[in-house]
Amino acid sequence: VIALQLLEERILRDGQVKAGGILKVDSFLNHQIDTRLSYEMAREFYNLFAGCGINKILTIEASGIGLACLTGYVFGCPVLFAKKSRSANISADVYSAQVPSFTHGNVNTVMVSKEYLGSGDRVLIVDDFLATGAALEGLIKLVETAGGTVVGCGVAIEKAFQNGGELIRSRGYRVESLARIASMSESDGIEFCR
Amino acid sequence: VIALQLLEERILRDGQVKAGGILKVDSFLNHQIDTRLSYEMAREFYNLFAGCGINKILTIEASGIGLACLTGYVFGCPVLFAKKSRSANISADVYSAQVPSFTHGNVNTVMVSKEYLGSGDRVLIVDDFLATGAALEGLIKLVETAGGTVVGCGVAIEKAFQNGGELIRSRGYRVESLARIASMSESDGIEFCR
Repeated sequence: VIALQLLEERILRDGQVKAGGILKVDSFLNHQIDTRLSYEMAREFYNLFAGCGINKILTIEASGIGLACLTGYVFGCPVLFAKKSRSANISADVYSAQVPSFTHGNVNTVMVSKEYLGSGDRVLIVDDFLATGAALEGLIKLVETAGGTVVGCGVAIEKAFQNGGELIRSRGYRVESLARIASMSESDGIEFCR
Repeated sequence: VIALQLLEERILRDGQVKAGGILKVDSFLNHQIDTRLSYEMAREFYNLFAGCGINKILTIEASGIGLACLTGYVFGCPVLFAKKSRSANISADVYSAQVPSFTHGNVNTVMVSKEYLGSGDRVLIVDDFLATGAALEGLIKLVETAGGTVVGCGVAIEKAFQNGGELIRSRGYRVESLARIASMSESDGIEFCR
């Protein structure tokens, strides 16, 4: 559980609570990435999900990719990241889902090529944040539309005061969040769940 | 040089040359990511740039992030990725550059928070592809506007038949590409530089 301690300490030291319920952790998680911390988080996901037969990590661009790739490296399996726009070099044949973005204030169509997700896949979904759960729901939909199995979700920071985690767990999915924030405010700072 | 062999073999096995000069390698590099291969590439960047005093890896979202994070892990230093749009949780105080995208056919404003790039930084720029050089030029501009030093650029695949690599090297920057494609076509396949 060293990753959990490191992450909580780092959030308290470097995280900034901003207006509108935003937690700014871009000095170490989702703009600049502390790769040692991400590696420790990846190892913790491995501790939590080893033996579950995971053969693929799924995340969503862009801020989940770093943590997902270190997680894939630790698990020894490939990472697939859902794309937010169709580029010239993605296949036309995709699974897609609609994902509203809390921080960007828009709705993205996210997609993965059908070639890389199928009924044989046992997937760990990895993301940096869990708040409304919209991103995880979109990723779960991609896996299940492909006929694959969602083994669980590994999240760095859960805003437990929003209902996303509760919602997804209530539907029977295993969600492991390394830091769970019970409350946060500009005036009173950050409290973790205990 | 195991990374170079693995990468060339993988390009020949799984890469697909598409109309319009597109090399589709999204089964292992920029949609689905082979994390073992990326780790070997990261180790090769370390072999090439160890001892150069690099303290930060810079890349651009989204497809460079995975390789950059494994590279940062091997170097033991943080990764910074330039963002393509301003989100609610990025500082207003950014360095920015214009980057035309070859595969998406548009121009992106890419930006990094001024907090995370400065005059003390000795930066290795990492990206999955080098073709026109537009992305690397944008990233170089970000580093130099911040007063930092570009130690070099580490690229997975260079399309050496386009002039980006030549252009950037001619300006005095060290560019190391793990696979250099001399020519490619749908009919004749892929030839590497020797």
